[in-house]
Amino acid sequence: MNTAAAVTPIGLQDGRIRAVVESITPSLDGGRFPVKRIVGDKVTVEADGFADGHDVVACDLKWRPAGTADWFSTPMKPLGNDRWRAEFPVDAIGLWQYTVHGRVDPFLSWRHDFARRVELDDVRVAARSGATLIAETAARAQTNGEVTLLLAWSQELAAAADAGAAIDLLKQIGLDEGRGQIAQRHPDLRHACTAAGVYDITVERERARFSTWYEFFPRSAAGDGKRHGTFADCEAWLPYVQRMGFDVLYFPPIHPVGRDRRKGRNNTLQTTDADVGSPWAVGAAEGGHDAILNELGTLADFQRLLSKAHEHGIEVALDIAFQCAPDHPWVTQHPEWFRKRADGSIQYAENPPKKYQDIYPLDFESEQWRELWAGLAGVFEYWAEQGVRIFRVDNPHTKAFPFWEWAIARVRSRFPDVIFLSEAFTRLRVMHRLAKIGFSQSYTYFTWRNTKQELTTYFTELSQGPGREYFRPNAWPNTPDILPAALQYGGRPVFMARVALAATLAASYGIYGPAYELLEHAALREGSEEYMDSEKFQLRAWDRDRPDSLAEFIALLNRVRRENPALQSDAGLRFLRIDNEQMLAYAKMTPDLSNIVVCVVNLDPHHAQSGWLQLDADLMGMAPQQACQMHDLVSGARFLWHGDRNFVSLDPQRSPVHVMRLRRHLRRESDFDYFL
Amino acid sequence: MNTAAAVTPIGLQDGRIRAVVESITPSLDGGRFPVKRIVGDKVTVEADGFADGHDVVACDLKWRPAGTADWFSTPMKPLGNDRWRAEFPVDAIGLWQYTVHGRVDPFLSWRHDFARRVELDDVRVAARSGATLIAETAARAQTNGEVTLLLAWSQELAAAADAGAAIDLLKQIGLDEGRGQIAQRHPDLRHACTAAGVYDITVERERARFSTWYEFFPRSAAGDGKRHGTFADCEAWLPYVQRMGFDVLYFPPIHPVGRDRRKGRNNTLQTTDADVGSPWAVGAAEGGHDAILNELGTLADFQRLLSKAHEHGIEVALDIAFQCAPDHPWVTQHPEWFRKRADGSIQYAENPPKKYQDIYPLDFESEQWRELWAGLAGVFEYWAEQGVRIFRVDNPHTKAFPFWEWAIARVRSRFPDVIFLSEAFTRLRVMHRLAKIGFSQSYTYFTWRNTKQELTTYFTELSQGPGREYFRPNAWPNTPDILPAALQYGGRPVFMARVALAATLAASYGIYGPAYELLEHAALREGSEEYMDSEKFQLRAWDRDRPDSLAEFIALLNRVRRENPALQSDAGLRFLRIDNEQMLAYAKMTPDLSNIVVCVVNLDPHHAQSGWLQLDADLMGMAPQQACQMHDLVSGARFLWHGDRNFVSLDPQRSPVHVMRLRRHLRRESDFDYFL
Repeated sequence: MNTAAAVTPIGLQDGRIRAVVESITPSLDGGRFPVKRIVGDKVTVEADGFADGHDVVACDLKWRPAGTADWFSTPMKPLGNDRWRAEFPVDAIGLWQYTVHGRVDPFLSWRHDFARRVELDDVRVAARSGATLIAETAARAQTNGEVTLLLAWSQELAAAADAGAAIDLLKQIGLDEGRGQIAQRHPDLRHACTAAGVYDITVERERARFSTWYEFFPRSAAGDGKRHGTFADCEAWLPYVQRMGFDVLYFPPIHPVGRDRRKGRNNTLQTTDADVGSPWAVGAAEGGHDAILNELGTLADFQRLLSKAHEHGIEVALDIAFQCAPDHPWVTQHPEWFRKRADGSIQYAENPPKKYQDIYPLDFESEQWRELWAGLAGVFEYWAEQGVRIFRVDNPHTKAFPFWEWAIARVRSRFPDVIFLSEAFTRLRVMHRLAKIGFSQSYTYFTWRNTKQELTTYFTELSQGPGREYFRPNAWPNTPDILPAALQYGGRPVFMARVALAATLAASYGIYGPAYELLEHAALREGSEEYMDSEKFQLRAWDRDRPDSLAEFIALLNRVRRENPALQSDAGLRFLRIDNEQMLAYAKMTPDLSNIVVCVVNLDPHHAQSGWLQLDADLMGMAPQQACQMHDLVSGARFLWHGDRNFVSLDPQRSPVHVMRLRRHLRRESDFDYFL
Repeated sequence: MNTAAAVTPIGLQDGRIRAVVESITPSLDGGRFPVKRIVGDKVTVEADGFADGHDVVACDLKWRPAGTADWFSTPMKPLGNDRWRAEFPVDAIGLWQYTVHGRVDPFLSWRHDFARRVELDDVRVAARSGATLIAETAARAQTNGEVTLLLAWSQELAAAADAGAAIDLLKQIGLDEGRGQIAQRHPDLRHACTAAGVYDITVERERARFSTWYEFFPRSAAGDGKRHGTFADCEAWLPYVQRMGFDVLYFPPIHPVGRDRRKGRNNTLQTTDADVGSPWAVGAAEGGHDAILNELGTLADFQRLLSKAHEHGIEVALDIAFQCAPDHPWVTQHPEWFRKRADGSIQYAENPPKKYQDIYPLDFESEQWRELWAGLAGVFEYWAEQGVRIFRVDNPHTKAFPFWEWAIARVRSRFPDVIFLSEAFTRLRVMHRLAKIGFSQSYTYFTWRNTKQELTTYFTELSQGPGREYFRPNAWPNTPDILPAALQYGGRPVFMARVALAATLAASYGIYGPAYELLEHAALREGSEEYMDSEKFQLRAWDRDRPDSLAEFIALLNRVRRENPALQSDAGLRFLRIDNEQMLAYAKMTPDLSNIVVCVVNLDPHHAQSGWLQLDADLMGMAPQQACQMHDLVSGARFLWHGDRNFVSLDPQRSPVHVMRLRRHLRRESDFDYFL
């Protein structure tokens, strides 16, 4: 044979690494981005692990908080078909890492074969091999006790083989379960393989997954629509917000409002001195993104409000809108952060033919991008230093992705518990990219998803699509920018249905109030989604004691959310069949099925609708004909359901929704009596 | 604002790269492995490409033969939803590479906005910006002609703006389509992004995708079952193999057969001097994997056979089985390539309690693994030097994956046109790993897939699952090791149906003959898949002129394969509905639908079966009620089909299969006359 031919150099990597690990889940873009979890979660990791031939393969899951040197390790369990699984707990906020190691295990392979040998000669020869393997294992053991035990075992097995022991005795010694377990703790890792990469997880506090938001304009806190509201006035709203069960109170920007080209009421160009302008036109002579509008109060007032809110179980979220009014100090301090037009003027925001001359966008292609990035990250850091830990970011999709990835990591390196909500209503992939690069939560298309088909498709994708690992929806039935057509024309039943949908379909949701609970539904004009007399441009008076207020209904929904863990996660959502196109039915379930909530919504605001709902007994851990009690947490009514098909009727004038706790402990007909 | 806080260093990467490219297809394990194509293919590449904001994004597909410095480039077309597509041709065997670049395009963004501007002032200012952009583009242009043209354009636009031209004129100049196209050839790439990786494609010759194999034992070529066959005898078989339409003639190992512990007829342990042993017990005193069994002839005889086969349009494939008989020269020359038992003897092959003492496996965990790898790769190289370009590799799944990946690349670096067939009947992920690391084709589970459900599921997965990019099935109804139960009991109809299924479901298939065409169906014993009197252990006499031979039927199938491109690729397979569980129906189609073959198989060997078959008109590019002619290429019959449901009946005693060419040029009822 011509082995004299030049041999292509064989690389330095050890060619004896026979095991392969691949197809690790969860994994986002091959490990490029972290997946997301919250503190206390168990992270379930799976991988394919195998090798050539028939030797026994073992896989270990490795994990650690990022930045620590040592890995924790746990053996993975085989699921069949070369798939392996293990889980680990994440018990602190921050970045964690995991990977998988695999190996051909000589000891396990030996034991597997040894158990199957039938001829005395073979068993004796194999016993001697085993003794050698066990002695090698002893050399890797860590305590004197283990070393001693394994060496004794090795010698016992070798001696028995030398002494001509019978098959049964040799197998009894060699297959000793207790000592085998100790040997397994010290495997031969010389030829272990490592998964292609290390995978990251961003672990956040629970509120990143489960949160209930109330958006409120402090400018209207005085209540009469005339005097400008203050942080002190906001304090008086806290009990109201707390009673409704919100845990995040989110303010539009609280900074000085630009005077140059300020907009008047209803977005008009004519203004008077009394006009307060849009809080999203950030910045004026007295300060920019790190300043507070004089009318709202001082930094001390703001901190006092944070503290009062905390006493009410409420966290204050700030709106960070990275754009500048023409009189923002940055415009003169950092003109290089803005784009110039050919006539030398600063480029205002536009989407031709539309123009927004009162707003200057920042130029992420500026030569001074490093300084710009540092300045913007500094805004988050400044407010975090004041005690703010939740930021709703305005239009993040019009700022460069690399900035967000860097800025979020930077802010979290100092303030690991900061939550970022992405207000991006834009193209799907852009929204997902923002979630991948670090935003904790994202606005969604829910605002415009109304029909059974739309809601089913969208929330199935959100809860079961690939995004479930990193895209956390925050559902809003309205915002100051969006009064959807359904709310303009549907009346109270639609307001009830939409908030109930948001509150039960999504673990995080929010409303812009008091416009929502007070059923505000007048649009600026026919066909517009803008509110008439929007608080974006003026103060408003709100009569929160109005008898038709939905405050109590919302309070009830939020209590149901707090009391039912199934509603605190986006996983575990499954739509149910109901034979009426105007009715939507779905279940939310905890992984252990200890909490199951079944919701039915009448999407038709004008007519009572009824239908036969099909419970998926198997999905819910029930026998096919098992009875269950359905406790409507809205009305308080209890229904006895039995079998797959059950009748549901909803009159929108009373309540367009059932939010029912399913109790399935009833196994015999006689069990029914106790609640009938 | 506290911008004095320590700023985390902003990396060296340019933060102004705003475009993102992700989710590239095809892509195998994130680019870790190449996908596969054949020479002449067009490779269609898609990617997500987008950026923040509203600027116009452009994407380019880049490709090159691996090892060349420059990339070819072509603009990708937007498919909507931020998805992009382009294709490129691969016109040579070898490794190719591709990747995708994306960018925010200032010129296209400017033009998009410029077209939408409505106010004269804006248009003039924008015209000046455009003039600057065009001048910058001129600086990147490559020919004097382009530079001159672009500079003139820039000056014309600026001058018109300065001269106070009207909107219409400014737009006419600025939106000039012809000069715009030239500007687009020289985009601003300063902030272009590159996909995360470079992706590889292995491009092979057509036979890697489309091949028809005939496995034949040269030892039986003499024909009488008494005299040992020679390569010269094999020459006499070439016209027969050619008439049947096979293009690969594959021989079991042709090396010296071990004498130590040689197996007798029917795998018995008793042998006489007349016993020829198993060719898979490779090696004896006279030589190993680079030697030829004396009885077959000399190297010159072998080369003469290769040449004669070539004249018949047939390529000879060799079986490379990396294992050694106890008397293989390597056992004494390289004892370190084998594993030792505790008693010092060499470890024979075993899977306890089974033992195969006549075969020594090679130890891929040997300290001398580098020398072992080089020796094994040398075997392929030696036979490639003799002119062999197709290797069927025996049990590759019992040798280390890293070896194969290295060895296949190494062999191809000298002999780029070598095809490797993986004979791995093992766990799914192991078979797929072998395909990923370089094997051109793979054996499949087809051999044991018999029912409609089994065949439908398996071939749908093969043709449409992720493996379609790298796992090329080679379907075998029998092998010398496997006489499936169906063939033992089903008689001639099953032999016809199984070979027709293999020939039409898979672009590559093979039979072990003449056992197959001569309907050999006697098993070693009840419940065994081993042939009685297997050629693995003895010579056989074959009467290839038997009147019941399937040679003509197979010749017909192979002619149909050659004449119908739809059967030459595994893509384009779609199963069709037919309302009979014993009948399987499917179409194979070329991408342009110019060739459509519809197959119907009666899986019941005992009874005639009939059913209504549902053609998918839409899939086949037909109007719902369009008529078509179905030309049965097996029987020659022509049927007129009309509409979705058509009646099919197959009597297994005549033919259990229709293989029908669909001709759909008939559009009006009157068109039918010409062939009725």
